[in-house]
Order: sequence, then C-alpha cells, then structure tokens
Amino acid sequence: MRLAIDAMGGDHAPKEIVLGAVDAVSQIANLKITLIGDEEKIKPHLSNSKHIDIIHTDEVITADDEPVRAVRRKRNASIVIMAKEVKEKKADACISAGNTGALMSAGLFGVGRIPGIDRPALSPTLPTIDGKGFLLLDVGANVDAKADHLVQYAIMGSIYTEKVRAIERPTVGLLNVGTEDGKGNELTKKAFILLKDAPINFIGNVEARDILSGTADVVVTDGFSGNIALKTIEGTAMTMFSMLKETLMSSFKTKMAAGMVKKDLRGLKDKLDYSEYGGAGLFGLAAPVIKAHGSSNRRAVFNAIKQACHMVDYDVTETIKTMIETIDLDKEDTE
Amino acid sequence: MRLAIDAMGGDHAPKEIVLGAVDAVSQIANLKITLIGDEEKIKPHLSNSKHIDIIHTDEVITADDEPVRAVRRKRNASIVIMAKEVKEKKADACISAGNTGALMSAGLFGVGRIPGIDRPALSPTLPTIDGKGFLLLDVGANVDAKADHLVQYAIMGSIYTEKVRAIERPTVGLLNVGTEDGKGNELTKKAFILLKDAPINFIGNVEARDILSGTADVVVTDGFSGNIALKTIEGTAMTMFSMLKETLMSSFKTKMAAGMVKKDLRGLKDKLDYSEYGGAGLFGLAAPVIKAHGSSNRRAVFNAIKQACHMVDYDVTETIKTMIETIDLDKEDTE
Repeated sequence: MRLAIDAMGGDHAPKEIVLGAVDAVSQIANLKITLIGDEEKIKPHLSNSKHIDIIHTDEVITADDEPVRAVRRKRNASIVIMAKEVKEKKADACISAGNTGALMSAGLFGVGRIPGIDRPALSPTLPTIDGKGFLLLDVGANVDAKADHLVQYAIMGSIYTEKVRAIERPTVGLLNVGTEDGKGNELTKKAFILLKDAPINFIGNVEARDILSGTADVVVTDGFSGNIALKTIEGTAMTMFSMLKETLMSSFKTKMAAGMVKKDLRGLKDKLDYSEYGGAGLFGLAAPVIKAHGSSNRRAVFNAIKQACHMVDYDVTETIKTMIETIDLDKEDTE
Repeated sequence: MRLAIDAMGGDHAPKEIVLGAVDAVSQIANLKITLIGDEEKIKPHLSNSKHIDIIHTDEVITADDEPVRAVRRKRNASIVIMAKEVKEKKADACISAGNTGALMSAGLFGVGRIPGIDRPALSPTLPTIDGKGFLLLDVGANVDAKADHLVQYAIMGSIYTEKVRAIERPTVGLLNVGTEDGKGNELTKKAFILLKDAPINFIGNVEARDILSGTADVVVTDGFSGNIALKTIEGTAMTMFSMLKETLMSSFKTKMAAGMVKKDLRGLKDKLDYSEYGGAGLFGLAAPVIKAHGSSNRRAVFNAIKQACHMVDYDVTETIKTMIETIDLDKEDTE
C-alpha cells in the first residue's frame, strides 16, 4: 500500500508530518509513503528514507488562499499533486493537515466522487466520556445539505464505523433540537423519514447535549449545523480549560493543589484530544482522503496514517460504492 | 409594576418560584406579583404575602404535554392564565420556568406579537470568559428562519442589550462557519447582506469557537443552529465537569488536592451558570415574556424577575416596536 501525504500542510509542517511518516513506515508493514513538498525542508527530518519517496514542489496553498481558486491556479501545489497521485492510482489514499477547503476542492476535482454520492462529507471522530468516541458528519463540506445527503452520510458513516472502528451495527442518530419523533426543521423532518427506511441501525433524533456522552456511534447532520456543533465543543472546552487554569493559578493554595494533580489533569486533556482518533475522513470520494487537524503533531499524523491504512485495508470506499449501487438499483426496481 | 408568574413551572416548583418572588417584592420597590398555581401548594412557602396575590388553578401543562395542543385545550393551565393576565393588561410582563414550547404558544396566542415582527426569538444570555456575557438568539423558537427574521433578531437583541445590559452600541455577530465575508449557507449569505444595512453595530461573521470568548455582545442565528450551539455548550461543560470530578476522585492524592480547591472550583462552576444572567427572553412579543431555566432555584427566579422589571422599566418592547415601524416606513419610502 502507498499513501500520498502533503508534507507542507498544517501548523507544524513539514517537521511533524515527516516525523509521523517515519514512525508509520517503521511500524506498519508493507506501507510506502510519498511525501509531497519542499525537498530541502523535508530531508533534514527524514532520519529513515526507506519506504519514503519525495516529490519535490515549492508551491503551497496557504490558509489565506481562496480554496477553489487556489486549487485551480496552483497546479503544482503540494495538495494538488497529492490528489493527482491518487487519481493516477500511484497512491491508494492521501492525507493533508493543510487548508480544509483546498483539500475538499483537490479531493473533489482530483480524486473524484463515488458514483451515486452527491456530496462528500467531512467526518471527524470525536471523544466521548466512555472513551469510545463517535463519528460526526458532515462538519462543513456541504453547508446546504438536502435530506438525501444526510441518508448518504448515515450509510457512509455506518460502513466506516463498522469496518474501521470495529463497532458492530453502529447506532446512527440524527442531530436535532429534541429527541421526540417529528421534531426539527424542514430538513431534519424529511431526513428522519428517509433514515427510518435506510439500511442502517437508526435510533432516531439525538440532542447536541448528549452526543459527548456517546448517545450514538454515528451522528448525522448538515454541514452548517455540524460545523457549529464541532466548533462549539472546541470553544467550550478551550474556555473551560483556560478558566480552570486561571482558577488553579489564583492563589498559593490552589497552585499547590494544581501541582499535585498536574499529571491527572493532563490525562483529562488527552481524553478530549481527538487527534487520538485520527483525522477527519472526507467520505464519499473515490479513495480515502484524510484531513489531519491543522495543529497535528507527529503522533496525530501517525494516527491519521494508521486510519488511512485501515480504510484501504478494509475496503471502505469499495463497500460504500457497492452499497450505494444496491440502493439505487432497489429504487429503480420500486419506481 | 406587576408581574404574572407561573408558580407551577420548573423542576423545583412551586417552592423555589415562590421564594424567589418573596425575595423580589422585598428588594425591588413598587413591584407587585401575581402567582398563578395551586394555592394550597403555594401558601406554605409564602412567608410574606404583601404585594403578592395568588390566582388559584390546579391545571398544569407538564413537560410531556404536546405544547400547542395543551395550550389550546388546557384553558385553565397556570401558564395560559399567566399569559392572559398580560393580554388583559393586568400584568406588565410574565415569567415561567415550565415547558418552553407551551410558553412560546401561550406567549404567541395569549400575549401576541409586536406588529412587524414575524417570529419571536428565544434569547438567553450566556457567560463569557470575561464575565460580560453575550446574548444568543434564536435558540429554538423558529427552526426554519429566513434572512429577514435574523435582521429582526439583531435589532431586538441590540435594543435589549443596550437598554437592559447597559452595553453601548453592542456589537452584533452572525453565527457562521467562518469569519470571512461571503462564507456560509444560503441563509447566512443572504442575512449577511441585510445585516450590513441594518441599524445595528454589525461586526460580520463570528465562529462558534469564539462566542464564549465574548467575540460579540449579540450573536444572531436561526433557531436550529442556535439550539445546537446552546445545547453543545451545555453538553460539553457537563461532560468536562464530570470528567474533572472523576479525575479528582481517582486517588488519595487527587482527593486531597480536590479538597483544597473545592471552593475555587465551585466558583468556576458559578461563572458558567447562566441563571446569573436571568432567563431567556422571548423577544418580539407585545410584552416581556421570560423563560426561566427549568432547574431554576430561588436565586435564578429572583434574577429572572429583576430582568423582567428592567425590560419593563426601560421600555424594551415599546422601543422595538418604534424601531420596527421606522424601518418599515423607510422601506415603503424607498419602494
């Protein structure tokens, strides 16, 4: 198996990306990696170049670039070449920690969609209290989703969760303003009816209040609401940690107590760190495309690589393709 | 001034509702309160009945009732009589900690809308790191909002924040998936253009990640997304407190440290307790209608009463009415 990795994307590129890749090829059997980026900046961190090739380019898409335009104009950007490697079947999957919009564009135009999937979905796995985690999709690839799209998300999310996360018959919830049937806006009311008939383990509406308690293994929602939920989790956690820090640094006594529980509190922070679950898959594309978090360190990159390998090993893309074909055939039969 | 209060709504009714009312009449000059509910259950807590009247009824709308139907059928429910008191000008404003949907229905059918306001907005004030707080609207009164509605929310929220929260020229942000102009779904793209021309201090798009840092004094959004944001904040905070508790109770050492900072951590919890900011106003109705949190204790009820008094004192409803009339006249002039 070979992965194409954008070496220049993310806050700590290329160093942490390269270190993560080096860890991966030394620990994962039969893995080959192509790093795409500035060779001169990559090489100093490449302690072991066995199984790692470099495609040199010095063009990069930055966080400030307008994604769609940048992907069209910067034909030699690392992220564009990365997607091309997959398109031309030189790589089985790809990973970038760079500009999310650019990755979506490069994925859509470069890698292409699975036939029958209208819109890809950006799908991170988030932590839950019990440590099991849940998949949230879509968190922003498609901000004007239709009910049909949500059904496709549910199917893709279920297949991923069953194959890669090894959860049998994963429960699927629809993010909504209440748990009762019939609740919601036009979109969720329509989606609810369709989801009841979809080939998934649908458990009905779930509320944002309960998703971190693990109320469902897969939570589907439109890209706008999913983005709000994801960023509210991040913002609230950040706010609470900063308030907790302030509280613990407020007096001699609290500082002493803080010293005693420092390690335990770090454990708490790790529990909430979703880079442990890998990156966010861009489900619905013709090959696994992973968005690693912008702040990814060596370990997060390693986890994203492991995730991409699992997606390839367990044929996630092919399974989604077959399932969507079957459903479309069934639809034609009943029409 | 006289307030009508549903004595039977909320998890700790009628006791905490009555106690909050007693505190209020003893501390706020010229305040009279009408409590609506089961007289026999109210009286034991009514240590001081000066300035407090009771309207007896034993019909109640519970959390399990279907709101709209219940308001129509249970004509003697405490929440329905409460709204009627305002409609008949026997009270200047009203408060309930009961079923939110029922309060919206009772408010809409009983109290009525301000002319020109299409949809009322449920508008809680949430805590920020700096303790200033921000107003979020709508959090669920109207889950299929149009761009025009969001402009009305912005105007109502600005007036409330300026008058009651004494923040001059409050900043208004549009909740969105990115801060750049042009970001968003169909709704927010349209709303952005309208908000730029509205008589408010519009600062553009804000992200859910930043709202608890106080990025804007007023944050407007459709009722679906607002509900997701609100409940995600609640769920994340709850999850983190429960994880923190677990961490601090995990060993003898951590328990000892926890004992040392117990009081400080309670302070942290209080900082995040939004009942300190009063209840959620149902803005756009012809009189102030306040939804107190379901778990309201004596202090939260007192704060909601203070809030209602401020809304009456500072003529919030009348100011909104005049502003909406002016805008509508301007529109006609330019048409």
